[in-house]
Amino acid sequence: MAGPVQSIERAAAILRLLAGGPRRLGLGEVASSLGLAKGTAHGILRTLQHVDFVEQDEATGKYQLGAALLHLGTSYLDVNELRSRSINWADALAARSGEAVRLGTYLEGRVLIVHHVFRPDDTLQTLDVGTLLPLHASSLGKVLLAYRAAPLDAALEAGLDAYTRHTLVTPEQLARALAGVQEQGWAAEVQEMSMGGAGIAAPIRGHGGLVVGAVGLSGPVERICDSQDRPRSTLVTLLRDAARAISRDLGATRW
Amino acid sequence: MAGPVQSIERAAAILRLLAGGPRRLGLGEVASSLGLAKGTAHGILRTLQHVDFVEQDEATGKYQLGAALLHLGTSYLDVNELRSRSINWADALAARSGEAVRLGTYLEGRVLIVHHVFRPDDTLQTLDVGTLLPLHASSLGKVLLAYRAAPLDAALEAGLDAYTRHTLVTPEQLARALAGVQEQGWAAEVQEMSMGGAGIAAPIRGHGGLVVGAVGLSGPVERICDSQDRPRSTLVTLLRDAARAISRDLGATRW
Repeated sequence: MAGPVQSIERAAAILRLLAGGPRRLGLGEVASSLGLAKGTAHGILRTLQHVDFVEQDEATGKYQLGAALLHLGTSYLDVNELRSRSINWADALAARSGEAVRLGTYLEGRVLIVHHVFRPDDTLQTLDVGTLLPLHASSLGKVLLAYRAAPLDAALEAGLDAYTRHTLVTPEQLARALAGVQEQGWAAEVQEMSMGGAGIAAPIRGHGGLVVGAVGLSGPVERICDSQDRPRSTLVTLLRDAARAISRDLGATRW
Repeated sequence: MAGPVQSIERAAAILRLLAGGPRRLGLGEVASSLGLAKGTAHGILRTLQHVDFVEQDEATGKYQLGAALLHLGTSYLDVNELRSRSINWADALAARSGEAVRLGTYLEGRVLIVHHVFRPDDTLQTLDVGTLLPLHASSLGKVLLAYRAAPLDAALEAGLDAYTRHTLVTPEQLARALAGVQEQGWAAEVQEMSMGGAGIAAPIRGHGGLVVGAVGLSGPVERICDSQDRPRSTLVTLLRDAARAISRDLGATRW
């Protein structure tokens, strides 16, 4: 059994570093951030540049992510079965509910958005595909945690950051919320990530019945919730019906 | 000066392989496609899997691209200055022209779409960001070739494939067309990539005046062209004005 290849792990760490934080880094910054000798970091960066995974700014000499990653990233979407099986259901859910629909899957302590249908009106919206949400402060993340599609340890390790005064910031608060999600079969997030925003989400099960992702509705709190800040039951019903339909398409016969 | 790191080059080659063609490959297929020993390919694949660049299908054991690439790919968009400086101009161009707007940059013998504004109507459209177009059969590609933002050698090496009976398939036809693009300052593609489709594109210049990308309008031939299959001059004017505005924002003071 072959062990991991160190230079590839280091290359991946450099790409992750460039994807977070300031996004343009000099050789010294890359080397010191990852505890690498400058010569080692330089060899990896030059190779990454050679394969177009990294670009070097001519004026400053700083490194940033390269264009080849965009094509690989969108190619990933083409093979993602959760996404491809969900597209029509997500369109229908957005049309019926009048709200934005997002699909999330677990990635490295966070929720990765793999599909996003805009709220069907003419307002300016930003595509969230490819962005990462915190597990504990999003309805998609709570579903993944409650149904063990995301490890609780990873959420605690990433840290229960307080985004608003409503964010669940202690392991006890989170555990209570996740028990509630398991109980009712769906999750809500009301002004826990940003004031004025809310979301609800339900689990998507794959072949064999295991939860493989989550589908959710999100938007301004006054659209998602009623006057008592409780998610509107009509939206919850539409959402859960869609989640069941997607699960059936993915081969989850019953649960 | 450090040389390229072989294992990273091989890892990149595997990711490219998975992004093209069948997109789900077994270990043997990966190894033989790249001329690697099975053990070598396995070590690289396991490492790529470990960093979430590759996923293995549980049922078949086949490999496919992984979720971490999606986040890296969309993070690339955030640092792409061509795209960020163009977003508002592209929105305005789509609104004024009533047509879809796309921005392209050169990547490995093809045109990479880095931004796409849908035609402002209610028709169903598919986001082209991250897709690759042939240089010789797209208006964006012709602009990149004509202004040396894409090497002609790369286009010839990729092959002048015939997509329709109108595609330019000989180096002579292409050279003549590129001379025309340089002459008039913009490029057209009329039913050269798909019957019924057409596009026009203009160069975007960066700091120092070099062409760094192209912006284009595309859609059904009857919308882009007049009854003689010539691009509508009103659209050409709107496009060229937008290309100049973006270039100015990128620091191209005069050309």
